Amino acid sequence: MTKIIDPWGSELIEDYIKIIKDFGLETFDPNLFPKPNRIMRRGVVFAGRDLKQISKSILEKKPFYVLSGIMPSAERIHFGNKMVVENIRYFQDQGAKAYILVADMEAAAARGVPLDEAKQRAMNFHIPAYIALGLDPKKTIFYFQSENKDVLHMGYEFAKKITLNEFKAIYGSADPGRIMSAVTQVGDILYPQLEERMPGIIPVGVDQDPHMRLTRDVVDRTKAKKFFKPSGLYHKYTPSLNGEAKMSKSKPESCIELPEEFSKVKKKLMRAKTGGRDTVEEQKEKGGTPEKCMIFELYKQHLIEDDKELQKIYDDCKAGKLTCGDDKKHCCDLMEKFMKDFEKGIETARNNVDKLNFVKF
Amino acid sequence: MTKIIDPWGSELIEDYIKIIKDFGLETFDPNLFPKPNRIMRRGVVFAGRDLKQISKSILEKKPFYVLSGIMPSAERIHFGNKMVVENIRYFQDQGAKAYILVADMEAAAARGVPLDEAKQRAMNFHIPAYIALGLDPKKTIFYFQSENKDVLHMGYEFAKKITLNEFKAIYGSADPGRIMSAVTQVGDILYPQLEERMPGIIPVGVDQDPHMRLTRDVVDRTKAKKFFKPSGLYHKYTPSLNGEAKMSKSKPESCIELPEEFSKVKKKLMRAKTGGRDTVEEQKEKGGTPEKCMIFELYKQHLIEDDKELQKIYDDCKAGKLTCGDDKKHCCDLMEKFMKDFEKGIETARNNVDKLNFVKF
Repeated sequence: MTKIIDPWGSELIEDYIKIIKDFGLETFDPNLFPKPNRIMRRGVVFAGRDLKQISKSILEKKPFYVLSGIMPSAERIHFGNKMVVENIRYFQDQGAKAYILVADMEAAAARGVPLDEAKQRAMNFHIPAYIALGLDPKKTIFYFQSENKDVLHMGYEFAKKITLNEFKAIYGSADPGRIMSAVTQVGDILYPQLEERMPGIIPVGVDQDPHMRLTRDVVDRTKAKKFFKPSGLYHKYTPSLNGEAKMSKSKPESCIELPEEFSKVKKKLMRAKTGGRDTVEEQKEKGGTPEKCMIFELYKQHLIEDDKELQKIYDDCKAGKLTCGDDKKHCCDLMEKFMKDFEKGIETARNNVDKLNFVKF
Repeated sequence: MTKIIDPWGSELIEDYIKIIKDFGLETFDPNLFPKPNRIMRRGVVFAGRDLKQISKSILEKKPFYVLSGIMPSAERIHFGNKMVVENIRYFQDQGAKAYILVADMEAAAARGVPLDEAKQRAMNFHIPAYIALGLDPKKTIFYFQSENKDVLHMGYEFAKKITLNEFKAIYGSADPGRIMSAVTQVGDILYPQLEERMPGIIPVGVDQDPHMRLTRDVVDRTKAKKFFKPSGLYHKYTPSLNGEAKMSKSKPESCIELPEEFSKVKKKLMRAKTGGRDTVEEQKEKGGTPEKCMIFELYKQHLIEDDKELQKIYDDCKAGKLTCGDDKKHCCDLMEKFMKDFEKGIETARNNVDKLNFVKF
């Protein structure tokens, strides 16, 4: 039976190869795109859907878009959210028009955050945070879901195109709230094409693939509208620091939040699961197992840009030249710098948030 | 098992007493309201929900609202639609603020009518038709569903308050399109209370009761918002002219459309099912059965205002003094006058449609 991954769950997907097969995804080939970014090069981006239409747009310099959503319910995000932003930035650099929607309706309905407060939070924190993480604000169009009648209208229309059983087959379950969220997200994903018919790519964690499948089904059923089916780009999750699940704010002790006081982050990092041996002697003799090390995972996914530098750490660990204690200190140093830059970046972006390009409705 | 009546079906409800019991409705008591209108006096309005809060508002001259929706998909309505308008007018005369929403999103999603065309149709026909049927335009606030973000936001929020099983228990089935329609209608029903907290009454055919139940459940689950639960007022259906179902445009041969060329209406009336005997002789001897006569039903529900005049026809029929042929001719005369007045009324209302009170968004 095909495993159903639902966007509301929190499990860590162990077997990404199986996911590719079960979901009918394409294995990601970094050679498909020019100058692949760090997470593309390193297999963190591991799968896609319909990627050729995007690489064609890039090579032929034709218009395409990249889209993502911000959920302004919490006061913070977490380290794992960074990957989506990096992929958006990658496509921006390759010529994409970027759309960032603020899912304020979802925040209101699912988390009880009033619309005006959700807006405030997005303006004060989430949008500046995305910019601090690398989003190019000059090439980004922002909108609030609650203000975008076109999206709401599409959601209403698309709901009529799907049956309950189809919904269940895609999402594993169905309830009115999830249906409402999902059809509205389909509206979001296709919205940029109302302005200009063009392919689009949605970088997501694989848990979001149901929305991609639903959107692609809806495109099939609204042929008269001539939407392009959205392409998907899937990255692996940043694991929780104990390696047991995906990083999630619901497990704060093994999650690095953004922003977070560095002293707390440091404590969490020092407790993180590594691939070390039981004793230092054993480690020196047999070497460590960086494949199982959450610190190495942070380097690979987020903290070390240079491939050679990463390789050296890997080799040193394997050779028993690196102790987990020293390695964690190194990680803390990198993280401290990252955190400082991030907070500075947020501050700057916050001061310029009123100059951003919001869709006028 | 409770019979589930779904708003999308077309069956005729034979046993209204059973419906009252199964649905937990109040039997309608015409003494509850001052100067009950024709269909209230005659038991065509047969049930309600929470009617006392409305009669209290009337007697104490406190604010309340009456609300109904127009579906601008077709180019015409039918004779049965008239009753809702008469009940709206009744409550307007008793001091209610009336809200008429144009369900243009539903017309677009369910019937493929583009939003701008739906708007056009509503302005050219449906709204003028409602005014021609008696709606007091000076006491009515109109809006288009697609423009009303508050309604769309409420629909989104309310979807999260209900489970799929609850939805199925109320509606008998559930699919994404129906869920979307239903939660949006709940938003419509409660919308006037965003402006002013007050009781409201929704006059409907009993097939619409699921929306009332869903709305009342939603009010229970959004207690912080302090909505009044909407009151419901239920009328029997106008039967099709062959007496086999409720009048419906899907069976044009036994439906009187509005507007419709009178020559066609006449033919349909002459073929209508009556309570006559097999032969004129038998009828003279035993009398007719007006209870089974669709012509008499038209008199009772729509065409004869004066109770004494209606009683005389009943008595004459029972006594065998009235033949079905003569009676049908009489009905045609009344219908012809009605049709002429209706068309004139539409014309006048259409010329003044831009002066109506539309909510500005």
